[in-house]
Amino acid sequence: MATSNNVKILGSFASPFVMRARIAANLKSVGYEFLEEKFGQKSQLLLQSNPVYKKIPVLIHGDKPVCESLIIVQYIDEAWSSGPSIMPSDPYDRATARFWATYVDDKWFPSLSGIARAQGEEAKAALIQQVRDGIALLEEAFPKCSKGKAFFGGDEIGYLDIAFGCFLGWLKACEMMNGIKLIDDATTPHLAKWAEKFCSHCAVKDVMPSTDKLLEFAKVLAAKFKAAQS
Amino acid sequence: MATSNNVKILGSFASPFVMRARIAANLKSVGYEFLEEKFGQKSQLLLQSNPVYKKIPVLIHGDKPVCESLIIVQYIDEAWSSGPSIMPSDPYDRATARFWATYVDDKWFPSLSGIARAQGEEAKAALIQQVRDGIALLEEAFPKCSKGKAFFGGDEIGYLDIAFGCFLGWLKACEMMNGIKLIDDATTPHLAKWAEKFCSHCAVKDVMPSTDKLLEFAKVLAAKFKAAQS
Repeated sequence: MATSNNVKILGSFASPFVMRARIAANLKSVGYEFLEEKFGQKSQLLLQSNPVYKKIPVLIHGDKPVCESLIIVQYIDEAWSSGPSIMPSDPYDRATARFWATYVDDKWFPSLSGIARAQGEEAKAALIQQVRDGIALLEEAFPKCSKGKAFFGGDEIGYLDIAFGCFLGWLKACEMMNGIKLIDDATTPHLAKWAEKFCSHCAVKDVMPSTDKLLEFAKVLAAKFKAAQS
Repeated sequence: MATSNNVKILGSFASPFVMRARIAANLKSVGYEFLEEKFGQKSQLLLQSNPVYKKIPVLIHGDKPVCESLIIVQYIDEAWSSGPSIMPSDPYDRATARFWATYVDDKWFPSLSGIARAQGEEAKAALIQQVRDGIALLEEAFPKCSKGKAFFGGDEIGYLDIAFGCFLGWLKACEMMNGIKLIDDATTPHLAKWAEKFCSHCAVKDVMPSTDKLLEFAKVLAAKFKAAQS
């Protein structure tokens, strides 16, 4: 995709939240310059653009910064009429997609991100169970949202696909690190099919890092966390 | 306002999150039946309608439940074309309103709600300072959002007005309980004027409880908290 001087995304290749912004831009054929933040540092542009949270991702459109990944996805959908609509067209379907996207961020992701830092096997097992419980809820929600189509959003990737799908790389990494299965044909058949289609979609495949790359990055993170603890 | 069998709001008079749903419905002239949940209990209808969070508010439109206060506000705005638009029409203004509404819920409200339960004067003072810092950010944001008009949303109450304004009753109660001022003419002149206009608006004034009523309710809450601690 051609880059444009008009749109920048500040981020990091491994952040699922940054992937959201990039997938949304790809879906709407919005060219952007990807400015990768150096690990453990914050650029002057990031600090200026997101003074409240000082966090990636930030989308800068012209000279206007937009912060918070789900807000960026909605902004991209509303500011560019190119490509398919990311939000469902029906108000109730929108509310449902927003509900599950909020659930993913507020309830489910904290359990997933806690697994690597869990103190002890019991705490880790409890977090893995919470992740499984959330996945089971989303497996149950899938047919209602997708109405028999390939994605939560229907025929095309939509808001909830992006909100949840951005974690698929890290879910795979988590499965490998812990010798478990979280999404598979036997227990989550809808999500297993969906995950394959999502990750091979042209708006996603160049943005979603390989499991190997994420596992390598996870080692760097773990070493940093250990150093901070000791 | 005439009630309608078609729309129900499950809630409690004192919950700022429930107020959001009621204010949005009033703004759009959507009649609703208000079903007050009994304090400390959860009705069967609530448990059925919001099985994931089991929390108020829930809006039930026909037989369809919508959960999470900010999602309800957006749903009301999108499902009914009556009345003024609650979301700003410009995509960037929408992103800005969404950003501050998310800030209010994720960062600012936890400090406000923590004050009453703070252990010790130092912890309480730190929380009060966090609440002040957040209010200062919103004071600074006001002229940019309102563009010289009366509300964050411009001439009419909008999304951020509802998201932040629903806390004005509890802010007043917090001021009285702690002998402090959080919003006043001297330090937050924009918000002081805005708060007065917001609370006297016809969509708000019958929904916003009096300070006396909230102080009385706060005593019940405090007693319950103390009993749970001992």
